[in-house]
Amino acid sequence: MAYVPSLDLVPGVLAGEVRAIARLLSRAESGVEEARAALDAIYGHAGRAHIVGITGVSGSGKSTLVAKLAAAVRRTGRKVAIVAIDPSSPFTGGSILGDRIRMGDLAGDAGVYVRSMATRGSLGGLARGTLEAVDVFDAAGYDLVMIETVGVGQDEVEVARAAHTTVVVSAPGLGDDIQAIKAGMLEIADVHVVSKCDKPDADRTVADLRNMLSLGLSLPRRTRWQVPVVPTSSQRDEGIAELLAAIDAHWSSLEESGEIAARRMQINERRLLKSGEEILRDRFVRDRDGKTAALVSEVNARTLSPHRAAERLLAGLTPDA
Amino acid sequence: MAYVPSLDLVPGVLAGEVRAIARLLSRAESGVEEARAALDAIYGHAGRAHIVGITGVSGSGKSTLVAKLAAAVRRTGRKVAIVAIDPSSPFTGGSILGDRIRMGDLAGDAGVYVRSMATRGSLGGLARGTLEAVDVFDAAGYDLVMIETVGVGQDEVEVARAAHTTVVVSAPGLGDDIQAIKAGMLEIADVHVVSKCDKPDADRTVADLRNMLSLGLSLPRRTRWQVPVVPTSSQRDEGIAELLAAIDAHWSSLEESGEIAARRMQINERRLLKSGEEILRDRFVRDRDGKTAALVSEVNARTLSPHRAAERLLAGLTPDA
Repeated sequence: MAYVPSLDLVPGVLAGEVRAIARLLSRAESGVEEARAALDAIYGHAGRAHIVGITGVSGSGKSTLVAKLAAAVRRTGRKVAIVAIDPSSPFTGGSILGDRIRMGDLAGDAGVYVRSMATRGSLGGLARGTLEAVDVFDAAGYDLVMIETVGVGQDEVEVARAAHTTVVVSAPGLGDDIQAIKAGMLEIADVHVVSKCDKPDADRTVADLRNMLSLGLSLPRRTRWQVPVVPTSSQRDEGIAELLAAIDAHWSSLEESGEIAARRMQINERRLLKSGEEILRDRFVRDRDGKTAALVSEVNARTLSPHRAAERLLAGLTPDA
Repeated sequence: MAYVPSLDLVPGVLAGEVRAIARLLSRAESGVEEARAALDAIYGHAGRAHIVGITGVSGSGKSTLVAKLAAAVRRTGRKVAIVAIDPSSPFTGGSILGDRIRMGDLAGDAGVYVRSMATRGSLGGLARGTLEAVDVFDAAGYDLVMIETVGVGQDEVEVARAAHTTVVVSAPGLGDDIQAIKAGMLEIADVHVVSKCDKPDADRTVADLRNMLSLGLSLPRRTRWQVPVVPTSSQRDEGIAELLAAIDAHWSSLEESGEIAARRMQINERRLLKSGEEILRDRFVRDRDGKTAALVSEVNARTLSPHRAAERLLAGLTPDA
């Protein structure tokens, strides 16, 4: 198969062609420099999709729920894409979860697209290319783009900073040893889900969450929106329509209150900063044997502090383009 | 109390004076620009201490263990400092754990110093100023500097990247819903601790860990060192001396194998990159109303992609000094 220049893939992506989308996504994920101009063009055509971040600890049944939710979106006639982030070790690059085989019911439906991405090499939680993948789906006409991530530490915060609507999935019986994670999640959720509500202690989990929300823990980002707690059971197919209704209601609320403009601005500020960090890392790695190595040697010899060395490194940066 | 210029604090820090140390630490933590030259000077005098990262999920009894370990270090005549990272919400800046009152036995001992730092505003896990705080203690003559952090997501990875020796604390009965975290921790540990070994199911936790280690999961950073699993009970004061012996043995192993040079180089490479990201963030924030705002507006209007905007932002950076 001949290599198609990335810019030549753009019309296909904009027309929603699955093959063109797949190819551009792969190049975005691996950080191919040649794809940069195409991704710039794609960015100019994106901006219509509703971006929904879905996070929760592993074991919360999140992946199954996402599949059910995608099916519910399809039933409303909308196209839906899912960007699933695989947690992988920062040291070996190996995937913990391995290949996912799921979305069985939706196989063959051109209106739903699932893309798994490895977090390898990423520092801030989201995998490299995640936000470009969202742009690609957005520009390709997917109405709703979900970013699904495992909520451990920074991930859930990063996804909240990239999404219009953040859904946090809890499940009964997962134990209380992860209170710190839960506390962090309380603040970022626009919609709470309690999955596995067929289980006996689900009512308590729902009540606990509603309780914590009613305590009025600071929710600085929200003005009018009342964060709902939606009980679901993927097994019994319960609560999925209600969850989609809550997600849609949050989007309407953002638009009607005008809050969407501020949210978009925050997302873009964040993205600008993250892109800067990515460029810095790329150049650091690319130049490891040259200027960077000389600076690291000086830091090693303690003749230069890391901060001063970093200033020199930054001062030497000039744009590629 | 008159403001003492930071550079004037340096001789006191080098002499191990607690007041000078406390003042410089506060300035490092809040990112006071005036303290920069002093921290540069301090960096030049550091490099002797053994830096030990201690991580583990909350509920693992880590803080108590760290206090016991510090007491054991003191009994060998060495000075010990502890930099404890408080997890705090990225959105409200509020501390979850609140003030820590502990280290009771060691109160009044000038050979031990505990400093808590908030993670507020930090993106990569470690709090701002953490590594500078380690430098300060190092230059002030503390033989062993522990960085204690809650292991959720990126934190434990960051601490492993900053320390010579990484200790991962597990406890029996914390549940298996955090397998992803555990799997990540398996790879970064130089020493495993199972705390609360007075509890009934502790033996199983120890056996499980030894099992996983014997499976030969990739340990790319280690060559000869055999990662030990040390059972401890803070309540019964058991295993603490063994833990310190394991930490000391790892340090000896690094020195004898010559691996310490590579470890220091990795730490410094990482630190250079993190410092660069910090400078970038600072300038981004400082310039939010000026050039940054103009770039964000263009990104918002989709006339410029985040990547191109970031390139322009970086190109405009010149060193402060």
